[in-house]
Amino acid sequence: MSLLVVGSVALDTIDTPLGRAENALGGSAVYVAVAGSYLAAPVRLVGVVGGDFPSEAIELLRSRSIDLEGLEIVRDGKTFRWGGKYHSDLNVRDTLYTDLNVFEHFDPKIPAAYRKSDYVCLGNIDPVLQQKVLQQTDSPKLVVCDTMNFWIDRKYQDLLNTLRLIDVLIVNDEEARGIAREANVLKSARCILDMGPRAVVVKKGEHGALLVTKTMVFTAPGYPLEEVHDPTGAGDAFAGGFTGYLAKTENLSDDGLKRALVYGSVLASFCIEKFSLAGLEGLTESQLSARVKEFQKLSHFDGV
Amino acid sequence: MSLLVVGSVALDTIDTPLGRAENALGGSAVYVAVAGSYLAAPVRLVGVVGGDFPSEAIELLRSRSIDLEGLEIVRDGKTFRWGGKYHSDLNVRDTLYTDLNVFEHFDPKIPAAYRKSDYVCLGNIDPVLQQKVLQQTDSPKLVVCDTMNFWIDRKYQDLLNTLRLIDVLIVNDEEARGIAREANVLKSARCILDMGPRAVVVKKGEHGALLVTKTMVFTAPGYPLEEVHDPTGAGDAFAGGFTGYLAKTENLSDDGLKRALVYGSVLASFCIEKFSLAGLEGLTESQLSARVKEFQKLSHFDGV
Repeated sequence: MSLLVVGSVALDTIDTPLGRAENALGGSAVYVAVAGSYLAAPVRLVGVVGGDFPSEAIELLRSRSIDLEGLEIVRDGKTFRWGGKYHSDLNVRDTLYTDLNVFEHFDPKIPAAYRKSDYVCLGNIDPVLQQKVLQQTDSPKLVVCDTMNFWIDRKYQDLLNTLRLIDVLIVNDEEARGIAREANVLKSARCILDMGPRAVVVKKGEHGALLVTKTMVFTAPGYPLEEVHDPTGAGDAFAGGFTGYLAKTENLSDDGLKRALVYGSVLASFCIEKFSLAGLEGLTESQLSARVKEFQKLSHFDGV
Repeated sequence: MSLLVVGSVALDTIDTPLGRAENALGGSAVYVAVAGSYLAAPVRLVGVVGGDFPSEAIELLRSRSIDLEGLEIVRDGKTFRWGGKYHSDLNVRDTLYTDLNVFEHFDPKIPAAYRKSDYVCLGNIDPVLQQKVLQQTDSPKLVVCDTMNFWIDRKYQDLLNTLRLIDVLIVNDEEARGIAREANVLKSARCILDMGPRAVVVKKGEHGALLVTKTMVFTAPGYPLEEVHDPTGAGDAFAGGFTGYLAKTENLSDDGLKRALVYGSVLASFCIEKFSLAGLEGLTESQLSARVKEFQKLSHFDGV
């Protein structure tokens, strides 16, 4: 089934204690789309870049069969650029610069061929723009949505309006608490369910993820890795794996959502093993299913 | 099988946003012993208190069939008292006071009747004292040991000597990193395996726990609770449930250790649901096994 991805496309400069990537292809829509491309097809990308966007980046996305009709290129503009530096504790990150460039005035235009997309993943953009995207789509089967503190603080009412229109919200624990205005994470997730979504996913980084619906609570562990190279994009890879799996299977039951949470965790685990997008390149189906089995073993114990 | 527990016995004053407990029975050995008493028998306590130790506290421990021959009472001394205040984010705690009193010169003396204890749980005390305890025991089947940053910083060499004598180390992630002098948690756990223990448990509070042996990595999620009343003693309840389950089943295989991790998590989850020790009082076998099943459901997904 088709998967429409809307969000940022960027060139990232990333510094970690284990190395450095300069002007590497990044942005939330890119990570979502590339991760999702291992499960859903076609994957359609809506974003904006400048005339400086390298042809190698286009090639990389095309090599994952990602439809780029919706990638607007502003010839006389510059691509969104982000620079970040991770500490030896990779949970701590300094943003060195954020040059929004053409992304500052991003106004997503959904090509006619994309309007009937079955599954939609709304990256972390202004909630007003998220609504504009949904106005341009023709009743998708499932809408998954990301957001961040920036919008929770500045556009709370608009975000609430978006929440009424979506099916699954994916946020981290701090964001869940911020939206619900409640300290307890489980209560926050249940409070958000009353705001519209039928499922809330709370990402907890290295500690895994929590999935809450009206009838179920489910957890996926963080994948224990000896060497994390670069956490950039992990949350987006998670969203791409999660939504991509649902688009592939079309099983939106609690059981289907559980497995989607595991696929999200699997894609995120591959993402952080290498620099920038490299962890999401060249994966095979057998690598994915082997890691799904590892996740199963990680938390399975025999009846007592 | 018999379980010997050595550590602090205290009177705690605890302030949380949801209420307050004053001079309530606490201390690491108490939480370990009470949690362990649901699984192992007999449970034997070695600790020290002052003449002010209330008879109700003695009664409470006796009601859990805990053998108190090893509880030294210094008639003209005062019991260890600790005061803590939790923030609305219960992960943040201020210690208001720590009056060690008779615990300052704690010198554990193991009664003759305790020497042949099969399972030993060494609470968080000076690693030199932990070694003295082991010198007074007669080759126990399994020794589980806790420690904290205070000893890692001040008695690192002594701690290394203790590690050579124990089977399972239970620490939090920061402590694991501190002992291994390594930023990555999984690498830290594996490094600690090379220092002596055959298993390392990394407690991550609300994020669950990680169990690492030479042949296995296993995770237990944190139990998602809408209302956490008091996190005090959760780590010790975990250690008591973990060690108690092993003492009960005597299955020290990887599979046995996995189930012990779940039992530790179950006892910790009951502990934090109520104030101070109240969460560990009056539990039934069916409550325990029901929660074990909930843990199973929390992370079980069907094959994909």
